[in-house]
Amino acid sequence: MARKFNFNPGPAVLPLPVLEEAQRRLVDHGEGLSVLEMSHRSSTFQAILDDATKTLGRLLSLPDDYDVLFLQGGASLQFAMVPLNLGPGGAYVTTGAWSEKAFAEAKTVGDAVEVWSSKEGGYRRVPRPDERIEVPSGAPYLHITTNNTIYGTQWQHVPDSPVPLVADMSSDFLSRPLDVSKFGLFYAGAQKNAGPSGVTIVVGRRSILENFSGSPTVPKVLRYQTHAKAGSLYNTPSTFGIWLCCLVFRWIEEQGGLPEMARRAEKKAAMLYEVIDRRPDVFLGHAERESRSRMNVTFRLPTEEAEKRFLAEAEAAGCIGLKGHRSVGGIRASIYNALPMEAVETLAAVMDRFSP
Amino acid sequence: MARKFNFNPGPAVLPLPVLEEAQRRLVDHGEGLSVLEMSHRSSTFQAILDDATKTLGRLLSLPDDYDVLFLQGGASLQFAMVPLNLGPGGAYVTTGAWSEKAFAEAKTVGDAVEVWSSKEGGYRRVPRPDERIEVPSGAPYLHITTNNTIYGTQWQHVPDSPVPLVADMSSDFLSRPLDVSKFGLFYAGAQKNAGPSGVTIVVGRRSILENFSGSPTVPKVLRYQTHAKAGSLYNTPSTFGIWLCCLVFRWIEEQGGLPEMARRAEKKAAMLYEVIDRRPDVFLGHAERESRSRMNVTFRLPTEEAEKRFLAEAEAAGCIGLKGHRSVGGIRASIYNALPMEAVETLAAVMDRFSP
Repeated sequence: MARKFNFNPGPAVLPLPVLEEAQRRLVDHGEGLSVLEMSHRSSTFQAILDDATKTLGRLLSLPDDYDVLFLQGGASLQFAMVPLNLGPGGAYVTTGAWSEKAFAEAKTVGDAVEVWSSKEGGYRRVPRPDERIEVPSGAPYLHITTNNTIYGTQWQHVPDSPVPLVADMSSDFLSRPLDVSKFGLFYAGAQKNAGPSGVTIVVGRRSILENFSGSPTVPKVLRYQTHAKAGSLYNTPSTFGIWLCCLVFRWIEEQGGLPEMARRAEKKAAMLYEVIDRRPDVFLGHAERESRSRMNVTFRLPTEEAEKRFLAEAEAAGCIGLKGHRSVGGIRASIYNALPMEAVETLAAVMDRFSP
Repeated sequence: MARKFNFNPGPAVLPLPVLEEAQRRLVDHGEGLSVLEMSHRSSTFQAILDDATKTLGRLLSLPDDYDVLFLQGGASLQFAMVPLNLGPGGAYVTTGAWSEKAFAEAKTVGDAVEVWSSKEGGYRRVPRPDERIEVPSGAPYLHITTNNTIYGTQWQHVPDSPVPLVADMSSDFLSRPLDVSKFGLFYAGAQKNAGPSGVTIVVGRRSILENFSGSPTVPKVLRYQTHAKAGSLYNTPSTFGIWLCCLVFRWIEEQGGLPEMARRAEKKAAMLYEVIDRRPDVFLGHAERESRSRMNVTFRLPTEEAEKRFLAEAEAAGCIGLKGHRSVGGIRASIYNALPMEAVETLAAVMDRFSP
């Protein structure tokens, strides 16, 4: 069937050349067996893991004192691992459903404090660069969510923090250059810009990853230290998932790295926001202008009936995955790295001609 | 390249028809996108998850009061989740490195007691059917490891237990019929008989899965209750991994289900043990006869030099993945469901003609 324009929020579109290479080598990786059938302790898989780690390091211009871990369990498990490893009393900025979940899990595990929230306004914005966020002096870390998939908001600056900055980057990881040194630790479920679901990437300052400062009752399998010391092979990782991530990293590098990903994301986002701004009677953007995401563009139409009709017209043009999250409704266009420009042009054209 | 005879202990050989179907549908599942690119909340993925759950239920003759969960993190995460969910004070039978790890994690999390161990003899056996295992009356569960991959031992009976029986079945799950009702809960990393690494299957009595009896500080993401209530979609699962498991379950069913898997495993194991018993001057089996595994056949040769030469001869015949675990050395032949009979015949022939 003709390839769809896939606006899914995650799991999401993957680069076609990556899928094609995965397909070509799926039954035989080159040595008479599939990568799915290889020991995670084989030299072939170790080479894949090393390649993934080094390529990601180059993409991120990773400082020498940072390490990369490939784990499982998604951002949801990181919501627990962060407070279990860094200690109770973390400070949370809540800018959407996922940061609320991170905050709630931290409170379950021990203690945590909310230091800024845009809940009251319906999560329409993130903090402004000049806005002061008060972090209690004893907090072990400040937690932010760099992109809010459901609400379509995104930080365009990295806040100053007197304590290690921890970020959930699940939905904008690898979409733009990053000053890694400003973060103590960040993590991302791979299923937006980095690969398939089932792989979680954690990047952190080595001193934070290797020095466990949680309670002695924290399971060994939930300590960053355990995985850092074992080079992500403490237990069997998602070997196929890591191979796919490696292929995606290499694809990004071939395309021009994170500066090129940022250029494309800006161009795609601008195309959709331009129609939203030009037709305010038809499209009501959810995010405040300064907080607009370049990964997830969210908007409503005048009526639910119009939204249904819009989704149908988009689908007729080959655009799928546009329905807003069940908690907020409306439309959400997720325009990750691997989504072709043509897909966004097609959606913009549907928006252009839509009569409500 | 010619397909290898893959004796890897896990990740391990997968059925060729499963790999071929995965390859055929990798770029386009049939709707213009890959299963890797589908939302886990799409109706197509929900149908895959339902199919996997139902097919597994048929294979296991699952009683009505049991549920299946598809999680992440492998058996290693279950080592923590079991005591975190069922409470401290669990009773452990330690029959190898993995059950020791489960026991150690339970002690990290809270408290646990060892009630039987074959450590002293080098883990050469599991308890005999007539051997009494004393379980403290207050223990919330009794934990066993049904097959010990590294040492090549396997329980051939299900022990009576006055408290819920919990089993790590990672390396013999789906290799034989099972009386599910004798277990409170069991779990398996998929990467031996059920699918790729990155998927963990948990089967449990609904009353145990749904009634959380751990501490209120246990993270929500680590509670069985959370995943049971959300039908394994609390967070994004390994969607591709679950699809592959579903294909493997259907393959097992087409082949004749668990009775047929057991018949094949017995036949394969008998072929190798026959040579071991016939040539005791050359091959020294690790497991005591009554505890022999039908999934992992472990043995040594008179010298390390002979072992090296044996591995080289086996490799020349196309047999790979036979090196014993780094902690014990020697030879280990993992003969899981998907390993063709021809592979075992080939290995038996190599053993037959080997001069030490």
